[in-house]
Amino acid sequence: VTLANEFDRIARHFRPLAGPAALDLGDDAALLDPPPGLQLVVSADAMVAGVHFLPGDPPDLVARKLLRANLSDLAAMGADPLGYLLTVSVARDTPEAWFAAFSAGLAADQAEFGISLLGGDTTSTSGPVSLSLTIIGTVPRGEALRRGGARPGDDIWVSGTIGDGALGLLAAQGTLADPDGFLADRYRLPRPRLALGRTLRGVATACLDVSDGLVQDVGHLCRAAGLGAVIEAGWVPLSAAAATAGAEHFARCLTGGDDYELAFAAPAAAAAAVRAAGIAVATPVTVVGRFAAGDPGVQVRRTDGTAPALASAGWDHFA
Amino acid sequence: VTLANEFDRIARHFRPLAGPAALDLGDDAALLDPPPGLQLVVSADAMVAGVHFLPGDPPDLVARKLLRANLSDLAAMGADPLGYLLTVSVARDTPEAWFAAFSAGLAADQAEFGISLLGGDTTSTSGPVSLSLTIIGTVPRGEALRRGGARPGDDIWVSGTIGDGALGLLAAQGTLADPDGFLADRYRLPRPRLALGRTLRGVATACLDVSDGLVQDVGHLCRAAGLGAVIEAGWVPLSAAAATAGAEHFARCLTGGDDYELAFAAPAAAAAAVRAAGIAVATPVTVVGRFAAGDPGVQVRRTDGTAPALASAGWDHFA
Repeated sequence: VTLANEFDRIARHFRPLAGPAALDLGDDAALLDPPPGLQLVVSADAMVAGVHFLPGDPPDLVARKLLRANLSDLAAMGADPLGYLLTVSVARDTPEAWFAAFSAGLAADQAEFGISLLGGDTTSTSGPVSLSLTIIGTVPRGEALRRGGARPGDDIWVSGTIGDGALGLLAAQGTLADPDGFLADRYRLPRPRLALGRTLRGVATACLDVSDGLVQDVGHLCRAAGLGAVIEAGWVPLSAAAATAGAEHFARCLTGGDDYELAFAAPAAAAAAVRAAGIAVATPVTVVGRFAAGDPGVQVRRTDGTAPALASAGWDHFA
Repeated sequence: VTLANEFDRIARHFRPLAGPAALDLGDDAALLDPPPGLQLVVSADAMVAGVHFLPGDPPDLVARKLLRANLSDLAAMGADPLGYLLTVSVARDTPEAWFAAFSAGLAADQAEFGISLLGGDTTSTSGPVSLSLTIIGTVPRGEALRRGGARPGDDIWVSGTIGDGALGLLAAQGTLADPDGFLADRYRLPRPRLALGRTLRGVATACLDVSDGLVQDVGHLCRAAGLGAVIEAGWVPLSAAAATAGAEHFARCLTGGDDYELAFAAPAAAAAAVRAAGIAVATPVTVVGRFAAGDPGVQVRRTDGTAPALASAGWDHFA
C-alpha cells in the first residue's frame, strides 16, 4: 500500500533521477530497449545500517557506496553500466533532509557514471535503514569477464591498493589514526574500476571485485578454476596511509573487505598488455602472486618463500 | 563482507533456484541474452515484516507474495516474466528452517510461472525481515500496457474480485470471521494476472494492478490520462466471502490494498473483445465504471446515480 506522502516523496526526490526508460516512475515498471549485440549484466546487493555502513554516515555517501558497490560488480564482469532499481526502507519519521541528501548522492554518481534510475520502491520499517539496489549493465556478447577462467601459471593481479577499506572502517569508527581522512574516505566511497574492467576484456582470464577481502576473493577465483594460488605478502600494494598504519594491521588489509578493487588473472605472456591497460585508464595494476595446479586454496607467504609467516593469524591458508 | 556460512546458505537454498543466466550465482553478476524484438520490463518492490506481511506468516508464503506482487507489476504491463533478483536481510540467528521454507516457496512459484533466480544477496539485520525483489520480463516492442492511455468514455474494467486482500488482512489478524480461510489466503497469496495482461495487449488502452486500493489506483489512471472517472459501487465484483462480510466492510473493499487484480480501460466498442480475452484465460472481467473528460478524480456512486452515498467515509471523491 502506497501512502500519499510516499507519492510526494518519490516525485520530489526520486523522479528527477529517472531516465526515459523509467517512464517518470509513473507506470508499474520501466521499459528498456536492449542494445543489439550486447548481453545484459545484472546484479543486486543489499546494505543495512549497522552492518554495511555506520548509522551516522552521511546519507549521500551511503547512497553512493551502495551504487558503487553494485557498479563494482559490473566492473568485475567487464560491463558498462546502464541503470539501476532501488528499494529504500526507512523509519516512518525519517526527515525530508535525509531523502534530499540521499538522492543528491545518487544524482552526483549518476552524472559521474552516466546512468539513471529505472524504478524502485520506498517503504517504512521499524528497524535500521535497509537498502537494496539492482544494477543493469551491458557487455559485448561473449566478452564478459568471468570468475572461473584462471589457468595454472597465470599471474594474480590487483588494481589500486588493498586494505584501505578495512582500515577505513577503523578510521571511521575512530579507532585508527587517519589524519587526512584518506582511509575513512576509501571506506565510505569505493571507486568502481569500470574503465579497467572494460579494458581487460580479452586480456584477463578471470576477474572479480575484492569485496570480501583479498585472500577470500582470490580463494573464489581458485575454487571457480580448480586451482591453488600463492599470494606474495610483500607484493601486495598498500597505500601510504595503510603502510603507515603499521605491521599489526597488515593481516586486516589482506582479509578485510570493502576494497572494491579488481583481482584478476592473466597469463605471464599478457603482462605487458595488462600494464598497458592499466596505464590507458590511469589505474595502477600490480602482480601479487600466481595460480598453480593443486587443491583450491590460497597460501600467503613472505617473499623469502620459506614459511607461511602469518600462520598464527589463522588466515594464511584459506580454502 | 560475505561470511562463510552465508556461502553455505546460498549454495544450499538459493543455488538450486538459479537458471543458466545466473551462472550458478558464482560470478559477480548474471548474464542475460535479451530476446530479439522484445523490450525489457523491469520493476522492484520491497516488503518488510510488520508492514507488508505479518511476522508470523509462513516464510514460503512470504516469499511467494513478494514474487507475486512483482509478477503483478509485469501483468499490468502486459509482460511475460523472465527472472528475478532477490535480496534478503534477516536476523543473524535466523534458523535454517526459515531459509528452507522461504526457498521452497520460491521454487514452487518458479515452477508455476516459468522463471528462475538471476542473482541477489543475503545479509543480516538487527531489525525485521526486509526483502527486496527486482523482476525482469519482456514484451513485444511497443505493445506494453501503460497507465496513461485511457480516453473519455472508456469503460473501467477490473479482473477477479475486489477487496479480498484487504479483508484477508483482517481475517489473518483474527478480527474478521473467515471460516474456510478464503480471505486470509487471498491476502497471503496474490494471483498475478499474467495471462490476462498478455491477452489485453492491443485491447486495453491503459492498465495497472490494484495494489493501493481500487479507488486510489483508478485515480492513478485518471491522473495519468488527465481524466475523471465514476465507479459504480454496485458494479464492483465481490467474492462471496467479501459479500458475506457485510456492508460495514464495503468501504474497505474499495480502498484497501493487496488485491493484485488488474484495473484497465477499454473503449466501449472493445467490450466484446475484453470479455473474450477474459474467457480465453479463464479470468472474470467486470465493468465497474467509466472515464470522462474533467478534472482528474474518482467519484464513487450508488447505481441510482443520485448521491455520493459513501461521502461520510471520506473516500468517495479521491483526487
